[in-house]
Amino acid sequence: MTVLTVTPNPALDITYLVDRLRPGHVHRVRAVRSRPGGKGVNVARVVRARGVPAVVTGILGGATGETLRAGLTDLGIEDAMLTEALETRRTVNIVDDAGTATLLNEGGPDTGDEPWARLSARVAELALGADVAVVSGSLPPGPPPEAVAGLMAAAGHGGTPVIVDTSGPALRHAAEAGPAVLKPNVEELREVTGIDDPHRAAVALRRLGTGATAVVASLGADGLLGVTADGSWTARLAEPVIGNPTGAGDSVVAALALAVRAGDGCPDALRDACALSAATVLSPVAGEYDADAYTRLRTRVIVSEVQA
Amino acid sequence: MTVLTVTPNPALDITYLVDRLRPGHVHRVRAVRSRPGGKGVNVARVVRARGVPAVVTGILGGATGETLRAGLTDLGIEDAMLTEALETRRTVNIVDDAGTATLLNEGGPDTGDEPWARLSARVAELALGADVAVVSGSLPPGPPPEAVAGLMAAAGHGGTPVIVDTSGPALRHAAEAGPAVLKPNVEELREVTGIDDPHRAAVALRRLGTGATAVVASLGADGLLGVTADGSWTARLAEPVIGNPTGAGDSVVAALALAVRAGDGCPDALRDACALSAATVLSPVAGEYDADAYTRLRTRVIVSEVQA
Repeated sequence: MTVLTVTPNPALDITYLVDRLRPGHVHRVRAVRSRPGGKGVNVARVVRARGVPAVVTGILGGATGETLRAGLTDLGIEDAMLTEALETRRTVNIVDDAGTATLLNEGGPDTGDEPWARLSARVAELALGADVAVVSGSLPPGPPPEAVAGLMAAAGHGGTPVIVDTSGPALRHAAEAGPAVLKPNVEELREVTGIDDPHRAAVALRRLGTGATAVVASLGADGLLGVTADGSWTARLAEPVIGNPTGAGDSVVAALALAVRAGDGCPDALRDACALSAATVLSPVAGEYDADAYTRLRTRVIVSEVQA
Repeated sequence: MTVLTVTPNPALDITYLVDRLRPGHVHRVRAVRSRPGGKGVNVARVVRARGVPAVVTGILGGATGETLRAGLTDLGIEDAMLTEALETRRTVNIVDDAGTATLLNEGGPDTGDEPWARLSARVAELALGADVAVVSGSLPPGPPPEAVAGLMAAAGHGGTPVIVDTSGPALRHAAEAGPAVLKPNVEELREVTGIDDPHRAAVALRRLGTGATAVVASLGADGLLGVTADGSWTARLAEPVIGNPTGAGDSVVAALALAVRAGDGCPDALRDACALSAATVLSPVAGEYDADAYTRLRTRVIVSEVQA
């Protein structure tokens, strides 16, 4: 059985290497890299690197969609993306010699009602063959924020546990629809609850609507915070690692998906997610992690219970 | 009969509208536009807008190449591009609310010997049906700078006059191969001759190797300078126009192609090219010009003979 990831708004991630980015000037791009992107695709890459089969779905279209699809095949990820009559978006990341990254995110194509209904049907079908389903990233323009609840219902078809990583109004709707795990970062947590204290905010988020089984919040250098019915825990490294944080949140989600699949409890899940996330920060490429660092860091994560 | 334009290194031009470009930050792209690019494609657009059929050739490939090709059809330009096993390059132009344009140019795919030979054969075939041929823009990675001479020989097949707009070592090789018209800008002129004075530099460039029939140099706000066997002329507006200079040089080439086709002399050609170029500066989109401004400005161009 596999991990299914749903990326409602996938993108082709393009990286440009330049000497120095100077607004108002003409730049020769020294090197171009392009790879399939979108949070669910990154999660699937990490899951697969951990030795578990991953299937990705979402909506693709146009020439950029075809390029993305070819990239999935190259990565060995099972491609269950739908093709529709739209143009898949791109992101352009301009990295200069000083390591400064400047990101330009296209918003993505407007997804019509019918493609969205076809995606839900595809997700429901794929969920039957999955141990766990992940819904990751923003919604494309078109469907309203509450559409995330329909997608979650489809992903949970046949009782498959669902992990959701999204933001804004969609995060609130996802919380109310009762996922197995909700993974906001600290800013998203504050924005959706209006509460500054991460622990109080995570507890409040978990109690919205039907309620999530667990809320796992990423706190940046402060590690992770997990809240379940049985308690609350933090997981952190004594010394935070320094590197490229892009994709670290996706590695947390990948670790949580593997933990749900294995039936691990919250403290173990947090330990693994913290180490995998830090090992991702140490890798220069989003969606990849430093395997040696992961093994080493896994023994160094400090897990503590939070006293209410 | 048509105007043939050869673009050795075509590109898909992508424009991103953002609030403000800030290096090191994440930007939401508000609007995305994409259109066929490369200097020869811009020349063909302007030629066609002037009511003369235009045919474009060059080498395309991959998903970006297919998008470029679809754009040519939309523009009503006759597409005689070759498809080869390579990925067509992109350019990304980031335009912010203050109108600042930041350009990122991909270098383009390495063109192998065989695709290059097939392009030369295609150009020779198309030249037989053309009144005038234009070779425009940089060479792709792969062929050496002297390859421009072979492309010119192909474009001149059957006696078709050839206009060349390129830079660097390829410009020197083009000059030596004896085109009908060579169109450097003032920096390119200085770089290839090592002479600061534009008139002396243009005279020297025209005398290299077999020699160009005419050299027409664009001097930015100072207008145009034309040098032939019969004399030298400048063409300028009393008040330079202010706007987006992208594509202005391509409009000069388009006007020169139409002048060569019509058998106009250098002063008339310069007058038309100066007005068309200024009307392009007044249009926000490269490869387009303001038709009303063109008609109005045409009567205001000051053409003067340069005394040796």
